[in-house]
Amino acid sequence: MNIIAFPSRTEWPALLARPVQRSEEIEQVVAPILEQVRRDGDAALRTLSLKFDKIDLTEPGFVLEETELANAQTQLTDELKTAIRQAYQNIRTFHEAQRQPIEKIETMPGVTCWRKSVGIEKVGLYIPGGTAPLFSTVLMLGVPAQLAGCKEVILCTPSNHPAILFAAHLVGIRRVFRVGGAQAIAAMAYGTETVPQVYKIFGPGNQYVTAAKMLVAKEGIAIDMPAGPSEVAVYADDTAIPAFVAADLLSQAEHGVDSQVLLVSTSKKLIMNTNLVLTTQLENLPRRDMAAKAIANSKAILVETEDEAIDLLNQYAAEHLILSVENAEAVAERIINAGSIFLGNFTPESAGDYASGTNHTLPTNGFARAYSGVSLDSFVKKITVQSITPEGLQRLGKTIEAMAEAESLRAHKHAVSIRLASIE
Amino acid sequence: MNIIAFPSRTEWPALLARPVQRSEEIEQVVAPILEQVRRDGDAALRTLSLKFDKIDLTEPGFVLEETELANAQTQLTDELKTAIRQAYQNIRTFHEAQRQPIEKIETMPGVTCWRKSVGIEKVGLYIPGGTAPLFSTVLMLGVPAQLAGCKEVILCTPSNHPAILFAAHLVGIRRVFRVGGAQAIAAMAYGTETVPQVYKIFGPGNQYVTAAKMLVAKEGIAIDMPAGPSEVAVYADDTAIPAFVAADLLSQAEHGVDSQVLLVSTSKKLIMNTNLVLTTQLENLPRRDMAAKAIANSKAILVETEDEAIDLLNQYAAEHLILSVENAEAVAERIINAGSIFLGNFTPESAGDYASGTNHTLPTNGFARAYSGVSLDSFVKKITVQSITPEGLQRLGKTIEAMAEAESLRAHKHAVSIRLASIE
Repeated sequence: MNIIAFPSRTEWPALLARPVQRSEEIEQVVAPILEQVRRDGDAALRTLSLKFDKIDLTEPGFVLEETELANAQTQLTDELKTAIRQAYQNIRTFHEAQRQPIEKIETMPGVTCWRKSVGIEKVGLYIPGGTAPLFSTVLMLGVPAQLAGCKEVILCTPSNHPAILFAAHLVGIRRVFRVGGAQAIAAMAYGTETVPQVYKIFGPGNQYVTAAKMLVAKEGIAIDMPAGPSEVAVYADDTAIPAFVAADLLSQAEHGVDSQVLLVSTSKKLIMNTNLVLTTQLENLPRRDMAAKAIANSKAILVETEDEAIDLLNQYAAEHLILSVENAEAVAERIINAGSIFLGNFTPESAGDYASGTNHTLPTNGFARAYSGVSLDSFVKKITVQSITPEGLQRLGKTIEAMAEAESLRAHKHAVSIRLASIE
Repeated sequence: MNIIAFPSRTEWPALLARPVQRSEEIEQVVAPILEQVRRDGDAALRTLSLKFDKIDLTEPGFVLEETELANAQTQLTDELKTAIRQAYQNIRTFHEAQRQPIEKIETMPGVTCWRKSVGIEKVGLYIPGGTAPLFSTVLMLGVPAQLAGCKEVILCTPSNHPAILFAAHLVGIRRVFRVGGAQAIAAMAYGTETVPQVYKIFGPGNQYVTAAKMLVAKEGIAIDMPAGPSEVAVYADDTAIPAFVAADLLSQAEHGVDSQVLLVSTSKKLIMNTNLVLTTQLENLPRRDMAAKAIANSKAILVETEDEAIDLLNQYAAEHLILSVENAEAVAERIINAGSIFLGNFTPESAGDYASGTNHTLPTNGFARAYSGVSLDSFVKKITVQSITPEGLQRLGKTIEAMAEAESLRAHKHAVSIRLASIE
């Protein structure tokens, strides 16, 4: 780790800057793929899947149906099935509590307004292929979709890993399409003969997938959020255990060489000791080459005071923020920018990544300044409803008339006046 | 209105299609403006404001400070001030009820998770100039920003209409920048010497403003939602009063020639009578030329049954949906796609546009399928927090380890194992 002692506030922006994503070149690759799928549908998916994913979609297995999803569990160990079911249950419990009951508000006598939550009718989830089969992400997206009552939930993934299929089955997904990359995003955005069009697209992916999501978002297809490399910031004091801190930093570093890892402390001793154990732990990791590169780019920042640490962390706006400090909960209350916060020595990031119940789809790249992580809210729309009685309109009418008149919108005014005249 | 009787379901998509926005050409105009502001800051704003808005930003008045905002009320009638204050109060009451208290959820014994809402630190509101001074939109965006506790709320508008400044003062805005168009969006997205950078941008505007918002959104600046021309759908039966329905259709039509106006009914009589009074009412409107063009493009669709009407309305996903039918509330429960719903004969759209309390910044162009209107939620982020006790981790640990192992993320597993080992 690069240890930076007592940087001045003017140095913070450079220290906390994320690697710049050169998205334009990638967009130039992705835009023609989107256009090809929009134009040629399934035929384009076949060509592109063969080219990029070496998957032949003319073979059976383009669409995995309900029975195949249900049968996937036979290929999993009982231990893993139990674990996935436990995670499912905790995620469900946490997201279930996010339901909002309808509350009718009488803003004035006779003027009643409320909001009702309705699941987005058609949503699409994307799960990348690659070395790690991200079945945990199937749960993180599928559980809130299921709770929201989304009528059609589809999953596109180039993987046919049984744990992904089992998780899909558990969250009630009935159809999985074995399509990956930008072409999968295009299929869900525009629809093809086989893949239905959806209204909102969720899920992680490489830079091509991300660029595809941003491009279709510009056309009005909703997406979960913009994405960047995963990141963790740990704020630790002398009550933190260096071996735990090192393990947390490494669990972020193993995601990839572009993972962002940041340690902040008022204790030089903690930083030094963490750095020491980190080297030892790194040696024992299967993904040590990748993790070592991420760690080599990472920073440990020594600051003077807790206030300074909190300011710096709020400026960074980490996706994951671990507070391994004595007064963790009090510090958490002063955090205004973060995706998810982990308190104390026994709350590792991996708990939230998998099974504590919180969602692991979180804003990276400083987007936590304006975006929330995925939640039940991400899968519903809130429709406002209002009902006004004649007496209510008599009370409110003058206000509307005066405002509409001042905005030169005479027909808006007239829609009230004509009603008021009918009452009198 | 074009009256279409009993179209088949296969004809619906064409009937309900919105005008296609040719955004690419506009983007090509807007992208260099964004770049110019990013590079040259205030100097670019001065050049562009003089060119597009005929505003000289070297004169005093580039920034309107608190005292100027407070003094604006001296230029307003008491009637208008009272109306604005009443609207402010109702909007505040409705949005205040959207606050969510923190609820700690123990997903398993010793595993506690919750969410806390934090106002987005810096937000920017945009209000266009033009003929209608949209002070109502200042309230619709400013009230939830104020309730959310956003620390810095700025307003960019080329208008210096006293009602806009008064509304800004009422919602606690301390600085208004007299900048308009795409350059205003750029100023808030990138910051200039004078205009601070914000994390999320809200507000209506012409196609240039909309294109600018979509372009900065692609760079990670959050925006309220994608935008299209305003629209209303009215579903009416024989209990509806044709004069009221006509007034509602016209209040939408006066927004502009591209306004979308749709009447759906199972009653031919209602459609015919509405069409008749509409012609008369149109004659008396100051904006009759514009409204007449919008009405000429609008459609009245006669359907067989209520079920068919509801399906059609859900397929259309109107920004505003007026239900002037006997069983309005029961029908509303079956609506799954709409921005805001207005029930019965005495709930005109203009009530929601100005003063009932609901927000008038709503999804157009069918975006209501996936997007909600602006609410308190739009101005906060929800940060998840979790705290696990050693006993809790003992209960949950195996699940995390099994899942991390199966995803080949060994460091994630190790972050748990090392903690479990320390407990035993």
